[in-house]
Amino acid sequence: MEDKAISRAVIKRLPRYYRYLGELLESGVERISSNELSDRMQVTASQIRQDLNNFGGFGQQGYGYNVKYLHSEIGKILGLDRTYHMIIVGAGNLGQALANYVQFEKRGFLIIGLFDVNPVLKGITVRGIPIRMAEELPDFLQKNSVEIAALTLPKANAKEMADVLVENGIKAIWNFAHTDLRLPKDVIVENVHLSESLMQLSYNISRREQAREPAPDYGDNDENSA
Amino acid sequence: MEDKAISRAVIKRLPRYYRYLGELLESGVERISSNELSDRMQVTASQIRQDLNNFGGFGQQGYGYNVKYLHSEIGKILGLDRTYHMIIVGAGNLGQALANYVQFEKRGFLIIGLFDVNPVLKGITVRGIPIRMAEELPDFLQKNSVEIAALTLPKANAKEMADVLVENGIKAIWNFAHTDLRLPKDVIVENVHLSESLMQLSYNISRREQAREPAPDYGDNDENSA
Repeated sequence: MEDKAISRAVIKRLPRYYRYLGELLESGVERISSNELSDRMQVTASQIRQDLNNFGGFGQQGYGYNVKYLHSEIGKILGLDRTYHMIIVGAGNLGQALANYVQFEKRGFLIIGLFDVNPVLKGITVRGIPIRMAEELPDFLQKNSVEIAALTLPKANAKEMADVLVENGIKAIWNFAHTDLRLPKDVIVENVHLSESLMQLSYNISRREQAREPAPDYGDNDENSA
Repeated sequence: MEDKAISRAVIKRLPRYYRYLGELLESGVERISSNELSDRMQVTASQIRQDLNNFGGFGQQGYGYNVKYLHSEIGKILGLDRTYHMIIVGAGNLGQALANYVQFEKRGFLIIGLFDVNPVLKGITVRGIPIRMAEELPDFLQKNSVEIAALTLPKANAKEMADVLVENGIKAIWNFAHTDLRLPKDVIVENVHLSESLMQLSYNISRREQAREPAPDYGDNDENSA
């Protein structure tokens, strides 16, 4: 159980390593020590070494890490060495915001379809992709290879739509609807619960006010509900 | 360090408890045992009990938990028993998507200002809130009490804008820009890194394909980069 927790935490940290290494690469930096990386990333050098040791020895004593190699290897681990076709289901503001994120394309995530139920949106294009109606999903999924479906629609419709997607072959869902999807075990679900994120903020603001001191260190574990 | 990790994980789980309890409340359910809650939430009853024990004893042996009381107490811990004024800086699709989330208001997060640098957007209203230009921020922040600023603008402008906000009294930032903000310790930052979330998906898809088996259990810790 403990290994399970550690692994998950490490995987969650990998994208941030990838980002920093990408920036170093762009700046022309060829090698970096765990101490230098530690300074930049504001995590301990020992955590960096431990994290990266999970995936084989990348560094060399006295040399540090080769930026290009490390960036590339972490990219492979994160599955970024290939292309994914993604559709967005729910073409409201949030869906359109995702469709407009050019950075996703740079990472290999190509948005190839946009769907909605609102007939007013039919045919409107977002970065060249026409909004289709949800009824066209089964046909579209049959004709196109799609790995990921982003669900950016109201909670009430999310579960039904998730089922339609899974029935038609989708095996990975990026869920922005504020609900838990109960899907078969072979379907990967990544949730982005914005309300829950906002509640982390309110929790911290509230604690800060109670303590009348700088933003809380999570090491304080003596709060209680009253 | 270990307590710190546990606390953070518990806090991250609280909003989900709050959500489930809210739904139970709406359905008219008055009490619930940790086992029943465990079934609904798909987490172990013991985790539920442990998590809630961090905040004082809420349950009673043989009775379970009083839904209304538990919901209310968790709400207080999460700081949801008050109102927060929030502004959104960056009125593109993502900023407008946030501005259109009526659920935030229900939780006590009132969006009272929208800002951008694009003069084309000036004066356009989103749910009755006019988009103002960024130059108006210092004046606006002086005249209005604002607790949270959501940053939904490109990475390149994010750090500068964060500094302006902090200089003008903002002490909590909800950061959607794909960068780390280095701000004074008394400023709370909650990051939503969408690219990183998407990379969790690609990691899992990639592992599933390598293993040619159902979606990976994080307990497998024997992968390496080659």
